[in-house]
Amino acid sequence: MDIKELALNEHYKWQGKIEVVSRTPVKNKEQLSVAYTPGVAQPCLEINKDYNKSFELTRRWNTVAVVTDGTAVLGLGDIGPEAGMPVMEGKCVLFKEFADVDAFPICIRSKDVDEIVRTVYLISGGFGGINLEDIAAPRCFEIERKLKEICDIPVFHDDQHGTAIVVGAALINALKCAGKSIDKVKCVINGAGSAGIAIAQHLMKLGAKNIIMADRFGIICEGMAELSPVHAEMSKITNRDKLMGTLADAMKGADVFVGVSAPGVVSKDMIASMAEKSIVFPMANPVPEIYPEDAVEAGAYIVGTGRSDFQNQINNVLAFPGIFRGALDVRASDINDAMKLATSEAIASLVSDKELCPEYIIPPAFDERIGKAVAAAVAKAAIESKVARKK
Amino acid sequence: MDIKELALNEHYKWQGKIEVVSRTPVKNKEQLSVAYTPGVAQPCLEINKDYNKSFELTRRWNTVAVVTDGTAVLGLGDIGPEAGMPVMEGKCVLFKEFADVDAFPICIRSKDVDEIVRTVYLISGGFGGINLEDIAAPRCFEIERKLKEICDIPVFHDDQHGTAIVVGAALINALKCAGKSIDKVKCVINGAGSAGIAIAQHLMKLGAKNIIMADRFGIICEGMAELSPVHAEMSKITNRDKLMGTLADAMKGADVFVGVSAPGVVSKDMIASMAEKSIVFPMANPVPEIYPEDAVEAGAYIVGTGRSDFQNQINNVLAFPGIFRGALDVRASDINDAMKLATSEAIASLVSDKELCPEYIIPPAFDERIGKAVAAAVAKAAIESKVARKK
Repeated sequence: MDIKELALNEHYKWQGKIEVVSRTPVKNKEQLSVAYTPGVAQPCLEINKDYNKSFELTRRWNTVAVVTDGTAVLGLGDIGPEAGMPVMEGKCVLFKEFADVDAFPICIRSKDVDEIVRTVYLISGGFGGINLEDIAAPRCFEIERKLKEICDIPVFHDDQHGTAIVVGAALINALKCAGKSIDKVKCVINGAGSAGIAIAQHLMKLGAKNIIMADRFGIICEGMAELSPVHAEMSKITNRDKLMGTLADAMKGADVFVGVSAPGVVSKDMIASMAEKSIVFPMANPVPEIYPEDAVEAGAYIVGTGRSDFQNQINNVLAFPGIFRGALDVRASDINDAMKLATSEAIASLVSDKELCPEYIIPPAFDERIGKAVAAAVAKAAIESKVARKK
Repeated sequence: MDIKELALNEHYKWQGKIEVVSRTPVKNKEQLSVAYTPGVAQPCLEINKDYNKSFELTRRWNTVAVVTDGTAVLGLGDIGPEAGMPVMEGKCVLFKEFADVDAFPICIRSKDVDEIVRTVYLISGGFGGINLEDIAAPRCFEIERKLKEICDIPVFHDDQHGTAIVVGAALINALKCAGKSIDKVKCVINGAGSAGIAIAQHLMKLGAKNIIMADRFGIICEGMAELSPVHAEMSKITNRDKLMGTLADAMKGADVFVGVSAPGVVSKDMIASMAEKSIVFPMANPVPEIYPEDAVEAGAYIVGTGRSDFQNQINNVLAFPGIFRGALDVRASDINDAMKLATSEAIASLVSDKELCPEYIIPPAFDERIGKAVAAAVAKAAIESKVARKK
């Protein structure tokens, strides 16, 4: 049985991958009167007096909404909110298994930015955090920005920042391994959707100065006609040499390639044209921009992909569970740049200098230290950057 | 320690009364690839092809949203959405413990009917049912009506219908015990909020012809000045003799009194003025309209209250878990009158003719037969009334 058939069968058997359970016994009148009427009036009154108590007297403190509109689900595109639910439930499973966060899927039947924002805001009083998921660009940028402005709980679009953070972690160690400095290297990012843009922004915050972005139409350069507002914005802070042309042109002499684009778009010649000790992260999934063995054959020094069956898997699951764990632990009001950078550093630091080599730049998803290390780093950064409301 | 202090302490200890758990193992790469990428794409595609599969391939089939705006929480009034959460979590616990339904609390930061309706509709694709809770009248009527129109899953305002259904069950047996017929008796309902109105409507559907409603201003009579639209509506179908005056006037010669009003508003004289073999349900909680021993002393034949420490407890928990269990089991599109009437009958039928006596007209909350009996009756009624989409 192939993976597709197996997964479908299992989903029919599971009848849902998550479940809501009771933490309190109500087996008799006495227990009922404490957990429900009349006893329950007391915690209600406490919260009515002090809103902050909603983080102590209900499950809110540990609960994250996994929100989608179903418009950019995996590689499947706009399949609708209900069809996105198996992914959202899967995400909730990962939140629970990797960081003991109670995550609940919310699928929204709208593609209107303001309506999505308003809906999420209106229900946010029951949650401790909002994880946006699989929402198409450029809508996702505005939704995240507006929600961050109005919500008093952290809002995080994982497809952007989760990916960027883990790429950042992999790059920190890859550069160390290659003996290069981030402010000196030339990075090419292929794919200018939400992930590509977030990666560019995050790498710049990590110190990268020379980034070239490309998409299926070629290199993105300031002043080009027909750039979307977001791409026009990015064109001002990337591609400092105002290079124009194809992806192949961009990759000549590059130290780093990051692909969040499409299967097979990178050739061995393009890899061969890169600088010495090149770092290649072809992350299109399941079929990468170039297969690792081809990349290595063409001269790549370090290769990492999104796949679990190759070495150096660059996987969001290294980041988001621990990030929310840390943010919830200190009741952070935001997940800010300091917390994101701290996450990249924390993940990278789990590979010791002794272990570090081209084949091992990032810990595997099931390394049990990750969630705790990330949570601790995020909580510390939240406190230091003054977005923690609890220590 | 009194119940208030105990309940508050326990709520601090529990840190939330519900929890979201994983039903699927993700302990290694293989399991991850089935529950999440790449395997999860298959159930997504199935739902994209056939919307109905969202009830098979995700937890939707068993999941109910417990929705409030926090405006009519217990007897506490408008305490705000976050402060209502302990009650909503408690409700979710009861759903799970009494009927294995996964219920999740959604508190909405709005008091605007259309905004609440739109919010609930937009997130309804992730749920199999909507339980409205503790929303103030008259807003609750319009919210329920509009949601029933636009949602393809059942919508049920428990404060209205749950209460009415259980009063109906108690009355069926009380009348049997008293040897009276529902179409012949005079019923007085004190309290004309959402519960009182729903009780009046439900009792009429059970066959009652002669109902008088009263509130703190006295008897509600057609043509009176200053009736709200909802009360004007009720005045047309109740009080056929166009009686005017106080609650005491209404109760003279009445066979049935149902109170969903305020503590102590019924005197022994008022009870003494009722017909022979009178049935008295003073359900104000925790302090009833008249205490059972006073009512009996004044001549009441059968007394039932909302309290667990007196006999004949008339408690919503007898109804709502089994109702949603039954509705979910057959994927009902609605919870209609047929299903509500079937619930009253099913609960009443659990008291055998041999057991039936003034002190035992309704089974206790922890009678384990109730959930199953109600679910079966509701499922049957849904199928017969053609709102079931699965058998």
